[in-house]
This record gives sequence, C-alpha cells and structure tokens, in this order.
Amino acid sequence: MDEHATGRPRAVALLGGGVIGGGWAARFVLNGVDVRLHDPDPDAARKVDATVDNARRAYRKLTLAPLPAEGALTVVTSVEEAVAGVDFVQESAPEREDVKRALLATACRAAEPHVVIGSSTSGLLPSRLQADMEHAERLAVGHPFNPVYLLPLVEVCGGERTSPATLQRAAAVYRSVGMWPLVLRKEVDGFVADRLLEALWREALWLVRDDVATVQEIDDAIRYGAGLRWSFMGTFLTYRIAGGEAGMRHFMAQFGPALRLPWTKLMDVPELDEALIDKIVTQSDEQAGGRSIRQLEELRDDCLVAVIQGLRTHRFGAGALLDHHERAFLEASHPMVMGDGDDISRPLRLHTARVLPEWVDYNGHAHESRYLQVFGDASDAFFRYVGIDAAYLAAGGSYYTVETHLSHLREAAAGEQLHVTTQVLGCDDKRLHVFHELYRSGDEVLLATAEQMFLHVDTAAGRARPGRPEIIDRIARLAAAHTALPTPERAGRAIGVSRVPGER
Amino acid sequence: MDEHATGRPRAVALLGGGVIGGGWAARFVLNGVDVRLHDPDPDAARKVDATVDNARRAYRKLTLAPLPAEGALTVVTSVEEAVAGVDFVQESAPEREDVKRALLATACRAAEPHVVIGSSTSGLLPSRLQADMEHAERLAVGHPFNPVYLLPLVEVCGGERTSPATLQRAAAVYRSVGMWPLVLRKEVDGFVADRLLEALWREALWLVRDDVATVQEIDDAIRYGAGLRWSFMGTFLTYRIAGGEAGMRHFMAQFGPALRLPWTKLMDVPELDEALIDKIVTQSDEQAGGRSIRQLEELRDDCLVAVIQGLRTHRFGAGALLDHHERAFLEASHPMVMGDGDDISRPLRLHTARVLPEWVDYNGHAHESRYLQVFGDASDAFFRYVGIDAAYLAAGGSYYTVETHLSHLREAAAGEQLHVTTQVLGCDDKRLHVFHELYRSGDEVLLATAEQMFLHVDTAAGRARPGRPEIIDRIARLAAAHTALPTPERAGRAIGVSRVPGER
Repeated sequence: MDEHATGRPRAVALLGGGVIGGGWAARFVLNGVDVRLHDPDPDAARKVDATVDNARRAYRKLTLAPLPAEGALTVVTSVEEAVAGVDFVQESAPEREDVKRALLATACRAAEPHVVIGSSTSGLLPSRLQADMEHAERLAVGHPFNPVYLLPLVEVCGGERTSPATLQRAAAVYRSVGMWPLVLRKEVDGFVADRLLEALWREALWLVRDDVATVQEIDDAIRYGAGLRWSFMGTFLTYRIAGGEAGMRHFMAQFGPALRLPWTKLMDVPELDEALIDKIVTQSDEQAGGRSIRQLEELRDDCLVAVIQGLRTHRFGAGALLDHHERAFLEASHPMVMGDGDDISRPLRLHTARVLPEWVDYNGHAHESRYLQVFGDASDAFFRYVGIDAAYLAAGGSYYTVETHLSHLREAAAGEQLHVTTQVLGCDDKRLHVFHELYRSGDEVLLATAEQMFLHVDTAAGRARPGRPEIIDRIARLAAAHTALPTPERAGRAIGVSRVPGER
Repeated sequence: MDEHATGRPRAVALLGGGVIGGGWAARFVLNGVDVRLHDPDPDAARKVDATVDNARRAYRKLTLAPLPAEGALTVVTSVEEAVAGVDFVQESAPEREDVKRALLATACRAAEPHVVIGSSTSGLLPSRLQADMEHAERLAVGHPFNPVYLLPLVEVCGGERTSPATLQRAAAVYRSVGMWPLVLRKEVDGFVADRLLEALWREALWLVRDDVATVQEIDDAIRYGAGLRWSFMGTFLTYRIAGGEAGMRHFMAQFGPALRLPWTKLMDVPELDEALIDKIVTQSDEQAGGRSIRQLEELRDDCLVAVIQGLRTHRFGAGALLDHHERAFLEASHPMVMGDGDDISRPLRLHTARVLPEWVDYNGHAHESRYLQVFGDASDAFFRYVGIDAAYLAAGGSYYTVETHLSHLREAAAGEQLHVTTQVLGCDDKRLHVFHELYRSGDEVLLATAEQMFLHVDTAAGRARPGRPEIIDRIARLAAAHTALPTPERAGRAIGVSRVPGER
C-alpha cells in the first residue's frame, strides 16, 4: 500500500460543525472516511448535511475516478462520544482561545492514546492551544481554507510540545484525503497564508475607505489580473518569469526600488540587502528546478488558457469575457448563408479546424471522438449555411444527428490544419443525409469520412417535425446540384462483418 | 456595429518592445490590428517575434472562434515613423519618469490630432507623465499585466489634464482586443492592483527574511489555497460567502478584530468604524446582485472545479494533486484483467461515466462527439480487460479504430450517470469487431449504440500486425462466448439511404 492508502483514517471525530467543520465532514465522508461530529448547536446536523450536499454536487463534477464508498456521517451529543474509537480528531470550534483550550483538553483525555488531534484555528498559536492537554505532544494545527472540501491547502503547524510524529501523522491524514499539507518551519501569528491574505486585505480596506475603489473594482483588479496567475503560480515564480532570462536577481534589482515608493499604506518594509536577495535568488533557482524561462512561460500560458477556458464554462469572470469576445468574432465572421450566386456544383467547403495538442491521446494522434467533433462543427457550419441561425434555434427547430458512420483512413497529429467538404446525398422535409470528407490542408490527404443522417426536430416537444420551407428549399437545391456528383465510395456501406474470419 | 467592432483600431503604434511592449504587440496583431513598433534596442524585433510566437501558440489553444486575419507587425526606426497614420499609441518604455515624459511628448507632437496615447506605467502618475505634452488631454495610463496577451486586466487612469473622451477611447480600444479596462476613480501611487500586489509582496519578503517560509512554500500557500479562488472571485465576494447567510456585516464583525492582531508586519490599519463597515456592506450587496449565499457557493464551487480540472490537464499545482489523488483511487479500484472465473456469457460491463456540464452544446444535451468519447473510453476499458497495459502499448502494439457506426436513440443531459456494455461480434489475429450499447444508469434507457471495427497495429511502423497470442486468445474466448448472444438489431446495417425520398 502506498502512503495515500496507509495515511487514510478509518474514522475521524470532528468537533464543531460550522462552515469549516461542515467542510471537513464533507471532505472526509466523500473520501470514504466515517465521521463522528459533535456541535452544541442543535441545528448542526441540518447545516452539515447541506454542506455535504454542496460538496457531493461539486465532487460529481470534479472527478470521474471511482471514489470509495462514502463514509458514514453520525452526529453525536458529546465530545467523548465523538472521539470514541476514532483514529484522528479535528477541532473547528469558534476562534476563541478559552473555548478551544477546554475542548482540546477534553478530547485529549477521552481519545485513545495514539490519536492525533488537529485544530482548524486560523491564527491562535498551537503552543498556547496545547497548554491544558494531558498529551500536548499530540496537537497540531491543521488550518484549512474555505471550501474545505475543494481547496487543497492545509497549514500544519506544531507548538513547543508537539512531537515530530504528530506532524507527520497529521500531514499523512490530510494528504490521504487529497489535500496539500504545508508543514510550517516556525510557529508565527497568522501562520503563512493568512499573513499574505491579511496584508492584501488591509490594503483593500484602505482603498475602500479612501474611495479609491469599490469592493467590486478591487475584486475585478484581482480576478482579471494576478488572481488568474495565482491559481497555479505564486508571486515568486511569477516574478522570476517577469525577470526574463536575466533571472531573479535581475528582477529584484529592477523592482526592488518600488519597495520604497508609497505604493501601499503598509510602509514597514524589510531591508532588501544582499543577504535577503541572495536567499531569494537561491530559493527561486531551487523552485524553478532547472526549467528555463521559456519553459516556465509556456507552462504559465498553458495553465492560464486552461483556467480561463474552465471559467468560460460558467460564463464568469475572465471566462465570461472570453465568451463575449469569441461571440463578437463569430458574429463578425459568418454572414455565410447560401446565396443565389454560390457555386454549389461541388461538395461544400464550409469548415476548417486545427488539431489541438489536448486532442491527442496516448497513441500520439487525435482521439477518435475529436474527428466526430470536427465533423459535428462542419455540420453546424452547413446548418448555418442553409439558414439555421440563433433565432431559428431559439424558435425550437433543429437538426439532430440520428446515425453516423465514421471511417478512419489516416491519423491527424497535433498542429495540423484540417478542412471538411460536405456532399448532400438526400433529403426530405424532415431528413437530411450528408457525406463529409476530412482532409489535411496543404497536401490534401483524406484522413476520415463521416456519413450522417439527421432528423429535423421540434426541440421543445422532442419529436420529428418538418423544417421551415426556406431551409428545406435550400437543402433540396443542394441535393439536386449534388446529384451530378459521384456517390462517395464509402457511402451506404455496412461495417464489414463478413471480412472477419474469426466470427460466427 | 457593436462597441466591440467600433472600438478596434486599424493600426496602433507601440513605443517599447520589452516584455510588456512585446505582449501588447501580440495582443494587437492576434486581434487583427496592425502594429508599428519602435524600440531603440537593435534586438527588439527578434524578442517581440518570440513573444508573438508564444502568444500565437496560446491563442490556438484558447479559442476555436474564427479570429480575424492577423495584423501586420512592422518594426520601425523612429517614434515619428511609428505613430504616422495610426489610431492609437501605447508607450511601454522603462519605468523612468524622464524617459517616459520625453517619449510621450515626442509621440504627441508627431501623432494625428485625434490619437489617444496610453502609457503602460505600473506606478508613475499620469498628471506627471503628461507634463510636457502639447495635448495633455490625450494621455491615459493603460496599465496591463503579464502576459499582456492573456491577462485581461488593464487599469485605465487619467491625470489632471486628461479628457473624459480620452478615457472612454482608451477603454474602448482595450475592450476591442478582449481586455477588461478598469477605469480608476482617482489617481493614486500604484493604482489599485499593484497596491494589493505590493502589500502581499512586502509581507512575503518579511516571511523569507525571517525564515518563516521559503519562496516555494509561500507560493504553495497561495496556489493551493486562496489563489484558486482569486482566479474568479476577489477577496470581498469570497468573504461575503464566508460570512454565510448572515451576510457581510456578520463577516466584518467576526473577522474585524483580527485587524488588531499581529498577523502581518504591516500594522498600519484603517479604523474599522461604522462608516467604513456601512460602505463595505452596501457595496458588497450591490456586488452580489441579489444572488443568495447558496447561489454564490455553487458558483464558487463550479468555478473551482473548472479551474482545478483545467490545471489537471497540465499536471500542475492543484491539478497535479487531483491527478495524483485520482490515480490512487483508480489503482485501488481496478485490477480488472480478465480472469478464468469471470462470467463472460453476457455483454461485458466495464465502463461508467457521468455527463459533464462542458459536454453539453447549444441544444441542451451532450454533443454527439461526447458519445464517441464515452464509447472510446469503453473500448479502452475493454483493451485493459484483455490485457493491453501500459507496457504492451510501450512495446509498440495497439488497436486503432478503423470504422464506427453510431446510432443516437435518446439524448443525455448534464449530470446523468451512464454505463456501457460491450459484445464481441468477431475477431481474427488483427481485427476486432465489437458492439457497444450506452445506457442511462438507473432506469436503463438505451441512449446510443456504436458498432466498431479495430485493427491491431505496429504503432512504430504504422501498419497492421497480429496482436500477441495471449491477447488474441482472450478476445477469441470472449467472441466464442458471445456467439450464443443474439446479434444486436442495429449491427451490420448501412445508413438507410433508401428511406430518404428526396434523394436521387
């Protein structure tokens, strides 16, 4: 068994079921760990259930991997009942030192001797939290971030009396449920992440107070800019790239003087002396792990593209902006509706595409479904060409694919430019029968073909219905013109069962 | 024409071709705008070309929308030559006030009277930059973020003498190339975004100096935590959600006292009085736009899922962690190679999937290519089942799809759970003929079928070659067992040409 499997506890006790405690409950049960939760709030069970529902919904979207069977969630009426028989305890009580100290001492007395106890405190020092515990060596801070079931970061911090084994065990437990335990070197107020967040937050409060920006404008200044980068690269690696090939020392020399400028209200600034610069440069070199600036730039750009595309799915933030920008280009680009003067004597050439790197599977060429995606886009271009526009679709008419016969002749590699030709083989007022050919542009090699049958449907009713006369008329004109073309060799064929000797 | 189309300049002049100037060049030419660039560095053309190459690579991945034809990039030898005949000027010289003032004055004299001039300065005040300009009303700061071709944020800030029309024109130009112009209310040192970044940066420097954390650890504290949220929601909306249904006032009451704690070295803190709290609460209500906390939580979770999944594609940061976590579950779940005791008398059930939101197209159900993706994954599960593992593939043997006949019977909607059954219709030592059925799990409705023919290939040579005996043996045993099953109704059929009256 690997570390992942061995670290996972069978059952955990959660003390506190608010936003953070409920988030822990969700993360543990969805990763197959039984949870025994205690909270003095009589409404805690309902609130925790709601959080687990949220999390279940998110996990269904997050992963197709076979998650283990969900752990059982039991709400119990005392701390002693919660910790009985569990492998790990996580405390998430309100952020008051007296409350937490008492709770941790009680849990420590009641729990089995090997059990490590984590505290979700966002700022109280573990040396103080462990003061009243009989086995103080078993306490570690495990500071998570909201929503706990999705954000991986958990800061792990020991107090003066915490044992190294406790820190290791806490980190292993968190890792086993998909988190990133950041084990801290020193015990400091606010730990690391909240120090950074708090600095930004204090400056944000100044900006609002001084009417320099509204809360919306401040949020926009983050989420359309540095926030996109921060989702995968922190400040130091980002600035290393900004320094270019000259590297981190160059960056520090270039932007160091800004530290003396009144760029924030927070003017207590460390001395940027040679010792500090050397330390940063050395650590930055280690962080880069030998990757060149060019490699880091490509990684940064790939991640930015992926993040922005992900946000486009939800039409939010930078994703909404990309969606808007794309639509503008789409509208500008196709007044491509069939006109009387069009030459329709040959198969139509209405769609081009490029093979994207992410289309390529483990065989080194485009996944078979990507060919159908390109043919589907070619069909969409065809439908726009015969006059099916956004208004037509909004009115409830559309062609649905009924059957597709794909033949793969050659593979397509990443970066190759493709185009599709489309021949109409037949139609009536509901049905449409076409034959697409996919070519590599340039050398015109035929890569694949798709014979497709479509049915015109009433999308609201979900059943077949004739298309509007002007659409059917255009398609019929195309079908008539294409009658003169030879029938494609691969049209009208069944898959060659008889050619397989091994079959019954 | 909409704002998008009208705002786009035909040609722009760029003064300075470093990291920022090169980024501007890339953004403009890829959005169809001609660029005339001047930089005293004789090597500028090469550097800018490299940046445009980076950007072209990123844009190919970013969007399938039909971008306009690329603008022409011309490197010229003087400021006057650069600004001749352009609609807009963007200055990106080194961050020295004297250099920028002289350059802006020269550009202003040489440009046509209607031309607006933007400055990329990250901190110098526009009122000072415009001091030597004959037409000072035409200057606006347009402060972008690296990489300029991907990050949408640009802070737009006027000086004392800047005209409102100039700010509008600059914002329209930036919007036309896909950016998010944040027009600032006041001229302050560091504008808005860099004030926030600088506060975090100063705290990060303290943490490194005091050996609390290394640069890698600080970056990790961001990118596995708050950084993931910041890619789509700023601090204020995030904290509104953290406040729960009680709202922003509750949050401020709960976390306000932390402002007095020594959580950063930056202790100059605004007075959190009623006036400031009222202002934040009112602005936060506006920002939420009537969305409930529950709705905001779902939006947050959907965006987090999309961002983490996007990063998984590049196995970086939180995406690498998800990938690792999924693999552990996958390994724990399928030692799924065919064994002697397996019941193979019925079609195999080896693959399940769930319909992801991003599979759904404008018709409201999964795109046709996604059905083939699921069938392809079912085929992969079949190949693993008969013993084709990573080592087999690495040794150069694989099955390639030759033909596929898809039939669509019902639509699949987002979130639905699916499973596939697989019947072997025939085989020989090179060919394999299967029939997949795709069911909605639960009510067992048949959604689609796929008849597929595969060919075993030597992947290095790119031609057919018999499979290894142990693989062929397992497939033949399956084929023999499946002989007893009825032939699926839809197997062996051609697409029904004769049923289409409209055809020749």
